[in-house]
Amino acid sequence: MPIVNLSLQVLPLVPEEKVYPIVDRVIKYIKSTGIKYIVAPMETTMEGELDILLDIVKKAQEICVKEGASRVISVIKIDYKPEGVTIDEKIKKYYV
Amino acid sequence: MPIVNLSLQVLPLVPEEKVYPIVDRVIKYIKSTGIKYIVAPMETTMEGELDILLDIVKKAQEICVKEGASRVISVIKIDYKPEGVTIDEKIKKYYV
Amino acid sequence: MPIVNLSLQVLPLVPEEKVYPIVDRVIKYIKSTGIKYIVAPMETTMEGELDILLDIVKKAQEICVKEGASRVISVIKIDYKPEGVTIDEKIKKYYV
Amino acid sequence: MPIVNLSLQVLPLVPEEKVYPIVDRVIKYIKSTGIKYIVAPMETTMEGELDILLDIVKKAQEICVKEGASRVISVIKIDYKPEGVTIDEKIKKYYV
Repeated sequence: MPIVNLSLQVLPLVPEEKVYPIVDRVIKYIKSTGIKYIVAPMETTMEGELDILLDIVKKAQEICVKEGASRVISVIKIDYKPEGVTIDEKIKKYYV
Repeated sequence: MPIVNLSLQVLPLVPEEKVYPIVDRVIKYIKSTGIKYIVAPMETTMEGELDILLDIVKKAQEICVKEGASRVISVIKIDYKPEGVTIDEKIKKYYV
Repeated sequence: MPIVNLSLQVLPLVPEEKVYPIVDRVIKYIKSTGIKYIVAPMETTMEGELDILLDIVKKAQEICVKEGASRVISVIKIDYKPEGVTIDEKIKKYYV
Repeated sequence: MPIVNLSLQVLPLVPEEKVYPIVDRVIKYIKSTGIKYIVAPMETTMEGELDILLDIVKKAQEICVKEGASRVISVIKIDYKPEGVTIDEKIKKYYV
């Protein structure tokens, strides 16, 4: 199974002061999985096998609900190539 | 597991005349799964259990590659509520 | 200026029972502009000149705030070709 | 007019080896505008007045076509609040 890039933005429906804490909670969970990821202002991009990343997507929504969201919209982008895609090939040149 | 809405837009990297045929092939596959879905100009929205819909997302990308895409970007949106979300509650009023 | 397709999903941050009424208000506004559009479960796709559609995007956000949203996330997709893109070329075959 | 965050992902339809050079060309243009921005693996997020950012979105598509794309799909996300939204409030804690 190829390595893909998957970006996830969760939009929990909660009073505004609770949006960032819930997003932080999801990012903490992503960190805990041990996969490679990078946080950006509107989404977090992960690198790994698609199966694993889709499981994280599922879990992220459960976390939002558990933390108090009545509803969650998630925006996800997948970059898929049979030979694999890396975060580094995309942005390393901008940060070296 | 709650019923969710999931929208999928596949963007296969192919010469332009092959874009629509590949998208049609993906929609044909979605139809073959028997789930409820609706085709829109920029994405197809499906209704069902998240596990099943994420499996369809995975398969859609494999179809694009099998049909000749060197790379596939997918844009996915999930609308998730513990009590479930239906396509009808969102758009029925606009089509009756 | 070519005819493009632009999809807009507005996600107003409001208590859940107010989400659909605000989305309806935005769609009513889109209808009032006289442009061609189609409502789908997760976004509304419009057809027209990019300048005009981006003005509608801007106005949509102001409407959400005016109707009570403390914050609005919009997800927008543009399909752009120098020769133009139509809604019909994409979905007519699925609805005839 | 409030300061917003706008994320832009351009997906030019070109042979694969030309994708990154065109995306680089768009990012170079964004840099040349002098606005605040941050490059992520799947999108570049900008901070500024919505009018200015939407003009950049428009120009980005013209650049893709000028550089050889037969078609361009853009995925855009706007985070809009009357009091303004900053990139720093969202990600600074992750990079300090």
